Amino acid sequence: MKKLKRSGRLVDMTYYLLQHPHQLVSLSYFSERYQSAKSSISEDLTIVKEIFESQGIGSLLTIAGASGGVKYVPMVEEEEGKLLVEKLNQKLEDKERLLPGGYLYMMDILGSPRLMNEIGRLFAAVFSDQKIDAVMTVAMKGIPLAYAIGSYLDVPVSIVRRDHRVTEGSMVSINYVSGSAKRIQTMSLARRSLEEGANVLIVDDFMKAGGTARGMMDLLKEFNANVVGIGVLVEAEDVEERLVDDYVSIARLEEVNERQKLVNAVPGNFLKKLKEVNQK
Amino acid sequence: MKKLKRSGRLVDMTYYLLQHPHQLVSLSYFSERYQSAKSSISEDLTIVKEIFESQGIGSLLTIAGASGGVKYVPMVEEEEGKLLVEKLNQKLEDKERLLPGGYLYMMDILGSPRLMNEIGRLFAAVFSDQKIDAVMTVAMKGIPLAYAIGSYLDVPVSIVRRDHRVTEGSMVSINYVSGSAKRIQTMSLARRSLEEGANVLIVDDFMKAGGTARGMMDLLKEFNANVVGIGVLVEAEDVEERLVDDYVSIARLEEVNERQKLVNAVPGNFLKKLKEVNQK
Repeated sequence: MKKLKRSGRLVDMTYYLLQHPHQLVSLSYFSERYQSAKSSISEDLTIVKEIFESQGIGSLLTIAGASGGVKYVPMVEEEEGKLLVEKLNQKLEDKERLLPGGYLYMMDILGSPRLMNEIGRLFAAVFSDQKIDAVMTVAMKGIPLAYAIGSYLDVPVSIVRRDHRVTEGSMVSINYVSGSAKRIQTMSLARRSLEEGANVLIVDDFMKAGGTARGMMDLLKEFNANVVGIGVLVEAEDVEERLVDDYVSIARLEEVNERQKLVNAVPGNFLKKLKEVNQK
Repeated sequence: MKKLKRSGRLVDMTYYLLQHPHQLVSLSYFSERYQSAKSSISEDLTIVKEIFESQGIGSLLTIAGASGGVKYVPMVEEEEGKLLVEKLNQKLEDKERLLPGGYLYMMDILGSPRLMNEIGRLFAAVFSDQKIDAVMTVAMKGIPLAYAIGSYLDVPVSIVRRDHRVTEGSMVSINYVSGSAKRIQTMSLARRSLEEGANVLIVDDFMKAGGTARGMMDLLKEFNANVVGIGVLVEAEDVEERLVDDYVSIARLEEVNERQKLVNAVPGNFLKKLKEVNQK
């Protein structure tokens, strides 16, 4: 790579760091990449850090010592988080998404990679101080959000299935009771798709009573894995008894009334959690 | 937003452009964002453009005139593309992925958001000069790649299902013959998940005879949509009769031998297509 001036280094460095979130990059790496002295690289990083932090892009952690370097941690400022939650709620309240039976059509939201990335960054920020080895979700609607989060945390995604496939190799299955319908269902995860003892963030697009999340927690026990947290995009209104109590939600449906063609969405507990993390 | 110096503008501008691929950003937007003269912004963009292009990040197209601005188009240099294809093939040739029946376990590859993003960028680059309104895939293994591509092209993703769900609203279904097993199957797409007349890029993780891709093409006819292209991660070896002939593949399985515990993967036609696009 040819020698770059500061202005060029700043552009390329920003690109490189954004492509490698949560990874420790050594000063030597940049120093060789740009054929520049470590002292110049240090000064560059000071500028990048200042802008990342003042513009709400994220933190740039500096780890001192011989094995040290910098690590970009995607973060979100409260103000930006608030705007995003409001944007999502406005979308949710569009009465066109009401389907027969009071179900909500969500694929316009889940089908937008841009929106999924924005929301993925929210979750990555709120769980940024936890040790996470994998994101787990259940096919299929949780997948887009799980990948967005996995991307910002730089960890793999494990996809739980409700069916068996020959292309998964040996699978671990459990039965669970779906909380709302009280039906017994099966979910399975390929044995090799998650390491024993992994620290796992559970993600789903929607949570009603939490039966699916509960099922995923049970499944994780079979892998001796630890549940670091649960993140859901939307939680349902009016749930008598939740099967999980510790989760982060972006939005909460306060009321869904098919007859009156009304959807009322309020912010979930995400903003509170974000505030806690940002104050640390 | 407070006034930024050039060095700060370069960092934030790089971030902003990377977050908004294939979107036209006006000079006025940046000029207001940084409270700086358009002439300064123009100079900044010249630097960003030079680095984006020399480092193989992508092109920065400049559109002149009152409604003009800049557009970041993710691109990939041949050398980088080659390395990625090689990396994928090495992974594919790991004999540990052989499953009974000669199937290949792929979830370690498909489960990596980082790898999916890297490969998504390859497809976004090779289709960068086409007008694409949506990416379409079939649940579930094509989803991660489809979102990665959709993200770089900044277009929504439509997910075709093999089952019916109450949460999809009205759906359009077709029957198709899976090319390899010669079985009649059904696939469906929510009516409102794709606009009439859209220009669509079809994406899948694996293609054998191409029956699924053919099915998606038939389904698109029901939406009066146009197939812009077909992208598959891996194409199978030894197919007697392909049902589709125009597609881009990253890797091709030359030989899969269960008894000898052998997987032999070669590059697909992607690199040839990339060369053509980059020469334009």
